[in-house]
Amino acid sequence: MEDISSYVQQHKERFIEELIELLKIPSVSADPAFSQDVLNTADAVKESLLKAGCDHAEICETPGYPIVYAEKTINPDLPTVLVYGHYDVQPPDPLDLWESGPFDPVIKKTAVHPEGAIFARGACDDKGQMYMHVKALEYMVRNHVLPCNVKFMIEGEEEVGSESLGWFIERNQEKLKNDVILISDTGMISNEQPSITTGLRGLSYVEVEVTGPNRDLHSGLYGGAVANPINILTKMIASLHDENNHITIPGFYDKVENISAEERAEMAKAPFSLEKYKNTLDIDDVYGEQGYTTNERNSIRPTLDVNGIWGGYTGEGAKTVIPSKAFAKISMRLVPDQEWTEITELFKKHFESIAPKGVKVLVKPHHGGQAYVTPIDNIGYQAASKAYNDTFGILPIPQRSGGSIPIISLFEKKLHSKTILMGFGLNTDAIHSPNEHFGLFNYLKGIETIPLFYKYFTTLYLAEQGA
Amino acid sequence: MEDISSYVQQHKERFIEELIELLKIPSVSADPAFSQDVLNTADAVKESLLKAGCDHAEICETPGYPIVYAEKTINPDLPTVLVYGHYDVQPPDPLDLWESGPFDPVIKKTAVHPEGAIFARGACDDKGQMYMHVKALEYMVRNHVLPCNVKFMIEGEEEVGSESLGWFIERNQEKLKNDVILISDTGMISNEQPSITTGLRGLSYVEVEVTGPNRDLHSGLYGGAVANPINILTKMIASLHDENNHITIPGFYDKVENISAEERAEMAKAPFSLEKYKNTLDIDDVYGEQGYTTNERNSIRPTLDVNGIWGGYTGEGAKTVIPSKAFAKISMRLVPDQEWTEITELFKKHFESIAPKGVKVLVKPHHGGQAYVTPIDNIGYQAASKAYNDTFGILPIPQRSGGSIPIISLFEKKLHSKTILMGFGLNTDAIHSPNEHFGLFNYLKGIETIPLFYKYFTTLYLAEQGA
Repeated sequence: MEDISSYVQQHKERFIEELIELLKIPSVSADPAFSQDVLNTADAVKESLLKAGCDHAEICETPGYPIVYAEKTINPDLPTVLVYGHYDVQPPDPLDLWESGPFDPVIKKTAVHPEGAIFARGACDDKGQMYMHVKALEYMVRNHVLPCNVKFMIEGEEEVGSESLGWFIERNQEKLKNDVILISDTGMISNEQPSITTGLRGLSYVEVEVTGPNRDLHSGLYGGAVANPINILTKMIASLHDENNHITIPGFYDKVENISAEERAEMAKAPFSLEKYKNTLDIDDVYGEQGYTTNERNSIRPTLDVNGIWGGYTGEGAKTVIPSKAFAKISMRLVPDQEWTEITELFKKHFESIAPKGVKVLVKPHHGGQAYVTPIDNIGYQAASKAYNDTFGILPIPQRSGGSIPIISLFEKKLHSKTILMGFGLNTDAIHSPNEHFGLFNYLKGIETIPLFYKYFTTLYLAEQGA
Repeated sequence: MEDISSYVQQHKERFIEELIELLKIPSVSADPAFSQDVLNTADAVKESLLKAGCDHAEICETPGYPIVYAEKTINPDLPTVLVYGHYDVQPPDPLDLWESGPFDPVIKKTAVHPEGAIFARGACDDKGQMYMHVKALEYMVRNHVLPCNVKFMIEGEEEVGSESLGWFIERNQEKLKNDVILISDTGMISNEQPSITTGLRGLSYVEVEVTGPNRDLHSGLYGGAVANPINILTKMIASLHDENNHITIPGFYDKVENISAEERAEMAKAPFSLEKYKNTLDIDDVYGEQGYTTNERNSIRPTLDVNGIWGGYTGEGAKTVIPSKAFAKISMRLVPDQEWTEITELFKKHFESIAPKGVKVLVKPHHGGQAYVTPIDNIGYQAASKAYNDTFGILPIPQRSGGSIPIISLFEKKLHSKTILMGFGLNTDAIHSPNEHFGLFNYLKGIETIPLFYKYFTTLYLAEQGA
């Protein structure tokens, strides 16, 4: 048998080529214009799983985009790892800020990635990180070192709320039965200091619409006399934070988990340079909730951000108009114990309540999910920790992330197993931004590390059973 | 000689046909995509002026869109009327709210226009109202009743700030010499109660840009820790009005003309139904500066309206992004004695001063102009008043309008003559909005009324000279 690192060295050109082919398909789930590409991506993922050595792979139809399911069973008495990932990607806009086409992958060296990185939408989130698992399986199967059973569930709606995934899990709990869920859709601190994400924020995403007059009006003839929906929308949104950047929605903080001084001190130990943080973003200062550090603000504290706003004339030149409507997309990141549906309701109730006379307000709940925390004493975390330690030569640090994978709490509820987040991306990889990229070092290191997780998890699992 | 009303009756089909042809050309000055159409419209206007009987007409090149100049001189000792209008139109968007194509004119009856109205962008503002003057000239020339000299100056940049017009006037003061300037680019109270606009608001139009991080960020990984340009922009805009809807820019009201209780009482006499006003706009209440009525708010008081706002993800579905930039177009309507360039400076200084750390703010002044007031004791106003009285059978009411024709104060400064605003449109004609229209009654009544202005103005002028 060939050891994993030499196998990766021998096949890395092909691994990179295969990923690049996958990245060329614009699987933007948010935009119906790309629906055929999303479907084509599902087919490509299915084929890659069969080639990698799955006994069985299928395209499972759902009310939305299909889910790619695949499995390889070697022995029912051995544990089963369920790998989850997604083949859809974020919209690439703003296109003009990309240095190369979002779907024309190119490899470039960067300060953080001296060995080169693949630049393309989805390179890191999540095609690249998902595909590491496909290649890790290929290694284990071809070299007869797969130590347990494996199932793959790769969806196409993660970037738009995973609605069909909930529907699918609801109907396939037996089929999806597993002992641990493995996901690579998060990041780590740095290539020198790996980390494992032990906490994720929840999410509530809404769209708001403010309607004033029944038609666009001339701002000279009506200006000053009728409510301008844009002026009103800005007033309403501005009022959602107070002068300390606390969110003003009544009841919003009621269930926020209280983090002990000890845990906050523990978190503070993670290497972090505020100067570097500000410099990479080219900002003269950070901005957030009073009384919390930057790393606390973006991980253990809930937030409210406007993700998009539009109304009136936005073309070239000037138009003196009072528009009939103004819109915004608003998302709230939630922390453990905040119930996302309850928060959505609180937002709706409050936002409608602050609308002045003269306008009508519509709040459309979009999607959301619960926050999640993994205890570091379970065997899944321990197996992942050992795997990173072997390949990076240093123990990973457990870390809370500010991102959300809303579906994880559903996994726990419906599939009764814990989720382990083995992320290999970096915060600087610009996911959801122009010029998203994924380091070749990270991609290949991920392929090396994953089989070690299988090995250690199976050992720990059997020991636990034996005990 | 044939009297004007029977001439209009006899030729009205043709008058309507000719206007419809002019309205078919999409002369949108704000959007470079339409530049050839704007130029074609200038040619069409020039041809129509020659056909109507001008001795001379020309396309005058400028740094921007050309100005159509034409004249007919019958006797240097007689007064000269300078007709000003514009052949460019507002952008038609939002297109989906138009019931028929903005450049496919159709005639439909409405409650306000039982005799029918022409629906098209520019029908009222200003192609329709400008073309009334061309047809009025045709009548006077063909029937040898033109009582004085006439000049036409029709520009193509009124909807984007009339920059080239200022340049043109600067260089052609002798050529443009006149005794009164006549403009039809405003409205009147109703078809039963004509009015003459004696005041217009000034304007300052700016565009603002708020930049946060140097790239779009994932709202989960960065949310709560960095300034979100959209959240900041809403806070900054919201702060521009206080709880009484007074504008908070320091010095903004310093030079606002003080209107006497008498004048306000005079204004209050104009027929107005707040219920009808709210019903036609489908709003449950009006909204504006405390201490002023609706008609005061939109005429004698300055305002600040956001005309457009955009930033982040505005497409279908959801994108959890913190954008790098957010933008807004903001216009302020000014009243007599407010200096528009000074107000623009005050805005810039204030807006930059309220930007929090963590963002950069850019304020781009767009264009603007001074407010204007015509004294009702001058012979131009009196001639117009008599003309309306003859054709409508009732004296017109002098009225302040909330709109702006920034160039008028320049006319007075450079051409040393007063401007008379003989408007025939109605506030309900939806100028600057989808489904803009112009009543056939108003169009034809305008053509009837204008020659009477020429007659009375010449008589009053000669009397004044003789005196």
